[in-house]
Amino acid sequence: MEWTYSQPVKLIFGTGKVESLDKIFAGFGLKNGLLVSDPVFVKNGLASKVSDYSRGALIEVFSDITPNPTVTNVDDCARLIREKNIEFVAALGGGSSLDCAKAACSVCRTPYSVVEFHSGKRKFEKDFIPLIAIPTTSGTGSEVTPVAVLSDPERGVKAPLVSDNFFPMCAIIDAALTLTVPSAITASTGMDVLSHALEGFWSKNHQPICDAMALHSARLVFEYLLPAYLDAGNLEAREKMSEASVMAGLAFGLPKTAGSHACSFPLTSVYHIPHGEACAFTLDAFTRINAEAENGRLHGFARMLGFTDAYGMADSILEMKRAMNMKITLADAGIPEEKLEELARLSQHPNMLNNPVAMDLESILKMYRSLKEKSR
Amino acid sequence: MEWTYSQPVKLIFGTGKVESLDKIFAGFGLKNGLLVSDPVFVKNGLASKVSDYSRGALIEVFSDITPNPTVTNVDDCARLIREKNIEFVAALGGGSSLDCAKAACSVCRTPYSVVEFHSGKRKFEKDFIPLIAIPTTSGTGSEVTPVAVLSDPERGVKAPLVSDNFFPMCAIIDAALTLTVPSAITASTGMDVLSHALEGFWSKNHQPICDAMALHSARLVFEYLLPAYLDAGNLEAREKMSEASVMAGLAFGLPKTAGSHACSFPLTSVYHIPHGEACAFTLDAFTRINAEAENGRLHGFARMLGFTDAYGMADSILEMKRAMNMKITLADAGIPEEKLEELARLSQHPNMLNNPVAMDLESILKMYRSLKEKSR
Repeated sequence: MEWTYSQPVKLIFGTGKVESLDKIFAGFGLKNGLLVSDPVFVKNGLASKVSDYSRGALIEVFSDITPNPTVTNVDDCARLIREKNIEFVAALGGGSSLDCAKAACSVCRTPYSVVEFHSGKRKFEKDFIPLIAIPTTSGTGSEVTPVAVLSDPERGVKAPLVSDNFFPMCAIIDAALTLTVPSAITASTGMDVLSHALEGFWSKNHQPICDAMALHSARLVFEYLLPAYLDAGNLEAREKMSEASVMAGLAFGLPKTAGSHACSFPLTSVYHIPHGEACAFTLDAFTRINAEAENGRLHGFARMLGFTDAYGMADSILEMKRAMNMKITLADAGIPEEKLEELARLSQHPNMLNNPVAMDLESILKMYRSLKEKSR
Repeated sequence: MEWTYSQPVKLIFGTGKVESLDKIFAGFGLKNGLLVSDPVFVKNGLASKVSDYSRGALIEVFSDITPNPTVTNVDDCARLIREKNIEFVAALGGGSSLDCAKAACSVCRTPYSVVEFHSGKRKFEKDFIPLIAIPTTSGTGSEVTPVAVLSDPERGVKAPLVSDNFFPMCAIIDAALTLTVPSAITASTGMDVLSHALEGFWSKNHQPICDAMALHSARLVFEYLLPAYLDAGNLEAREKMSEASVMAGLAFGLPKTAGSHACSFPLTSVYHIPHGEACAFTLDAFTRINAEAENGRLHGFARMLGFTDAYGMADSILEMKRAMNMKITLADAGIPEEKLEELARLSQHPNMLNNPVAMDLESILKMYRSLKEKSR
């Protein structure tokens, strides 16, 4: 067996840690920073609180970011960085502000638009300003990955841009920031975490360090997601989900995700299902499909979590989805029978090639058809 | 709960990987390197093979290293680095050559003897040449830690020297290098791995990423150490023990070890028990002592490994020691009753403070007295 591992992001985990931002920034020698924030946190006052906690280290705020961040958002952000001689960026938010900031921290050191890089025309030099990631949901794991998903409306493209430059220097994971996340988003982002863990584990590119992260993360999701969903203010459950999220980020960062993420893309773009719920929509089905792969290693994983086997784990995923009022059947998701073939075709995303069981068009279709009925 | 994590060492794992040293070095842009090798590998030809694999990137060999590397070894090595304008070091061996090389890579950039740093008079600046670690045993985990244990015969001191400079740039873990390790050393170094995993997990400084590494590593030791011991040429078992070793290194690197390592130091210095066997000598006893600590979290760990509880895991450790013909009782180790108090006193090493159950002199003594009899 061969594998490599590297994990350049320093992690600082703790409830209330953002209140010590000044000390953290000072520890890295960081000043003249830009806060890149989802607009919602400018509205609700969190952005200005965070600026205050920095005690002068954050000198500007940029929040002109759409939910699916665009190349224009990145170019605007990079321009502000250049104009104000910004020396580092702190990104506060879910995926959008992090992804925008990741790209802007490198683009600002070039004379180009991010489009040049997003379209594949140019590659980044190893030249960028440092990024501190402060996630506000337990979900994407973006704080430990080198990926930024950007949209280019002119080219009609939404695609990942990847560069080793994009690894944050540090991620500050403060569960207190997640206490106000509404229950539906807790459910969706929480199932995204479970998808990262399981798909990182069963990805064809799996490797032991990521396996260990995946097991730990999945155990926490099975134990703490429902409590966090049922009681938004349950700090212990929020902390455990924050722990699960960052560890799932580490679990899939190198092996990448597989079938459920591949299917999630059209489920989101065509049927408007939120990302995490879209992953969850096929996650129990893929658990069954992958149960026997590679000498049934998923059974071993499931048993260490206390399930009878991988099928028992799949049942439990289905039950969690039910308990959190998520879409389970094709009818729930508003997918008509006659659109299934198109959906299956659109699900042939490159990530599908990481699935340990080969999935051709026919098997994807069969998987979707198995979601016709309410129970199994 | 609060924790931090950072892991700056890039890992390259794979049987036969040393044969591609030239490509690995070229990937990092490394040339004009020094091979620091345990003397045994100069004798048996491995050092010259490794130099050949580098295809000219390694231009010198240094092997004037004692089993417990001394400050003189480090200074000699640093002098050679300066004289030959060496730009990086590859360290081949068990702990000795790695520890010597770690220190030499920083000392060579100063005008001082390592004694200045080892004695605490000076601190290293962040200035060093890169180190590539190539471990030849599955044990120390030194390839992922910032620690070098050095002896200074003049001051009569054997003590760790720690610096963030000492993290290797990269560790190449090639299980093929461990195939010739004799069975007694396989047993001892393998139990060192298990001690790192368990003590990293139960250390008062435990944290989730290291917990996940510890669980994975311990699982492999319980499954593969005995097969590797019984059949030195069992490549699968050797690979799994190499995986266990590096992951145990990650498991204890930040939380540090606890009671068993604290006791191991006098067991080695006074009773000449090899390091790993010295750790194992008290490992089952500490497993019982720590079983109920922190709401019995060790029981959960043991159950995930398939044991009934932590006591069952302790029984299994004892059985492994028996099966590998290791010292179990005070009589086996040649420790006379009247020396127990002295041994207990010498076991009050700072690592003992990491033990989750407070151990005063009386409890350490009681623990040693429990090792009087052959079985329990």
